[in-house]
Amino acid sequence: AKRRSDMKLTFKYLDIKGLGEPIRLALTVGGLPFEDVRLSYDDVVALKGVAGDLTKHNGSPFGQVPVLEIDGRPFGQSGALLRWVGRECGLYPSGMKQLRVDMVEDTLADVRRVMAPNWYKNAMARKPKDGSLPRSTMLSEQQVSSVRWMVQEEYLPERMWQIERLLMEEEDPDANGWFVCGKELSIADLSLYVMMEGLLGICPKANTYCKGISAEKALMHCPRLVRLIKEVAKHPKIAAWNEEKWGEHYDKGFGGVTADLHFQKLGLNLRPKPKTEPKKQAEPVNPLKFLLLVALYVVFMILVVQFI
Amino acid sequence: AKRRSDMKLTFKYLDIKGLGEPIRLALTVGGLPFEDVRLSYDDVVALKGVAGDLTKHNGSPFGQVPVLEIDGRPFGQSGALLRWVGRECGLYPSGMKQLRVDMVEDTLADVRRVMAPNWYKNAMARKPKDGSLPRSTMLSEQQVSSVRWMVQEEYLPERMWQIERLLMEEEDPDANGWFVCGKELSIADLSLYVMMEGLLGICPKANTYCKGISAEKALMHCPRLVRLIKEVAKHPKIAAWNEEKWGEHYDKGFGGVTADLHFQKLGLNLRPKPKTEPKKQAEPVNPLKFLLLVALYVVFMILVVQFI
Repeated sequence: AKRRSDMKLTFKYLDIKGLGEPIRLALTVGGLPFEDVRLSYDDVVALKGVAGDLTKHNGSPFGQVPVLEIDGRPFGQSGALLRWVGRECGLYPSGMKQLRVDMVEDTLADVRRVMAPNWYKNAMARKPKDGSLPRSTMLSEQQVSSVRWMVQEEYLPERMWQIERLLMEEEDPDANGWFVCGKELSIADLSLYVMMEGLLGICPKANTYCKGISAEKALMHCPRLVRLIKEVAKHPKIAAWNEEKWGEHYDKGFGGVTADLHFQKLGLNLRPKPKTEPKKQAEPVNPLKFLLLVALYVVFMILVVQFI
Repeated sequence: AKRRSDMKLTFKYLDIKGLGEPIRLALTVGGLPFEDVRLSYDDVVALKGVAGDLTKHNGSPFGQVPVLEIDGRPFGQSGALLRWVGRECGLYPSGMKQLRVDMVEDTLADVRRVMAPNWYKNAMARKPKDGSLPRSTMLSEQQVSSVRWMVQEEYLPERMWQIERLLMEEEDPDANGWFVCGKELSIADLSLYVMMEGLLGICPKANTYCKGISAEKALMHCPRLVRLIKEVAKHPKIAAWNEEKWGEHYDKGFGGVTADLHFQKLGLNLRPKPKTEPKKQAEPVNPLKFLLLVALYVVFMILVVQFI
């Protein structure tokens, strides 16, 4: 096998903090030099390019970004790339620790799955061939707002709580450190950090998938998870990366890249879990049901008036 | 670390060939003894049980099955479990081969993501807390049938073709073997086999996620992929497992467990890729658009009649 320093790595992804950002962070933390290519949406379409020529390598083997070129050969699928980079950089442990990391990664994939219909306003994902969204499976405004509501009220709090419980499992969390695998930073912490930053609206470039969805309610009962995210943001190499690559975007909306400041602004400091469960709100009203009720009421009133 | 033979493994999953089946197959091929517990849907609800007691381990840490108990402690998330078992059993290689395996696993996850709205008839997945589906995000019959159509016509053929291209990448496929990592059987081959068996309708217990969706069109241009699935089905330990655990189900619908026979029945033998792309069919008609057109036509006819 080649030594790490001998590989030429080019990472191609959109200029957002989406699925590709944990991979960039892993390469940065791991000290693996790479060319950081930021693509426009037009670039992504062009990258798929040679789909007709089946004997040649496609610029994007799965019709999507991110793409990592290793010595000029393109590889795709964000989860696969994150694991490969993680292994190369010592951020993806083995044995039972790997199982912990993979459980968190899968849980975040579950969250993305239920957030996607809000982002795309569609029951389907982008078509793998041309990246378009099918018109025939579009969702109504009502369906999209229901998705958003359900994610915030049910799915996100429960998933975050599952991860909090995983962090709680260590007998002595302070002695063992604040990350998914104790003192050892892993790709799972990077994935958690990027998604939470998007959900908290800390950096506008980080809100892919998350538009209109807030994690504040979900994180309110997860002090260990909040502490983990803050720890990742404080990591010297990640703080430097954010300052250099995203600083201007943080500045526009939120004034400064110091992670602690953002969390304080959002009132997300460590606090004990309250003893009572949060109150449930009613599900959004189905407009058809509402119309039916109005119609029944009108008929009833007509009958009442008739008999007076 | 404990030796493999010292671990007590209990695998809990529904009595179907769904997300848990590749894990069962990996344990079987790897020769790792495990208790094969089949749950009813009621059992799954009961497993979540102690959700109130946060200090205790939940029977199902992510509110879902499959669950693998390692020495009595439950772990969840099918992808994480498959990777862990794969590593223990020598079915999950490292380095560039791991990258290939992970790329295939991620691509199958993409396929599941777009098939799910057909299976659940909902824009969301099951709620992680109680496993129910939210009423407010249900899909209409029209949306569900559009999802099914788009999966068959666009998503599945392209995804399968991406995997076929991955298999094609080996300079000399016959010399290197027929699996994702050449001669080496891996968890990716097991995942491919289970999903394809479901899509081909070979075993009724295997059609989770896939109901009403057929892979025949998608696989028609993927001889390497078909060969791979056949090879997996022929593996002595897998053939024996199918005969013992699922034989009766195969018999009911399809008469015998010999993989070759099933594929022959479906006319899926190796054949060269045709030179022309398959013809595109029109997207299903949007009923609102159709009504609008009818209304316009009626108005137009009234006007015509008026002026005659």
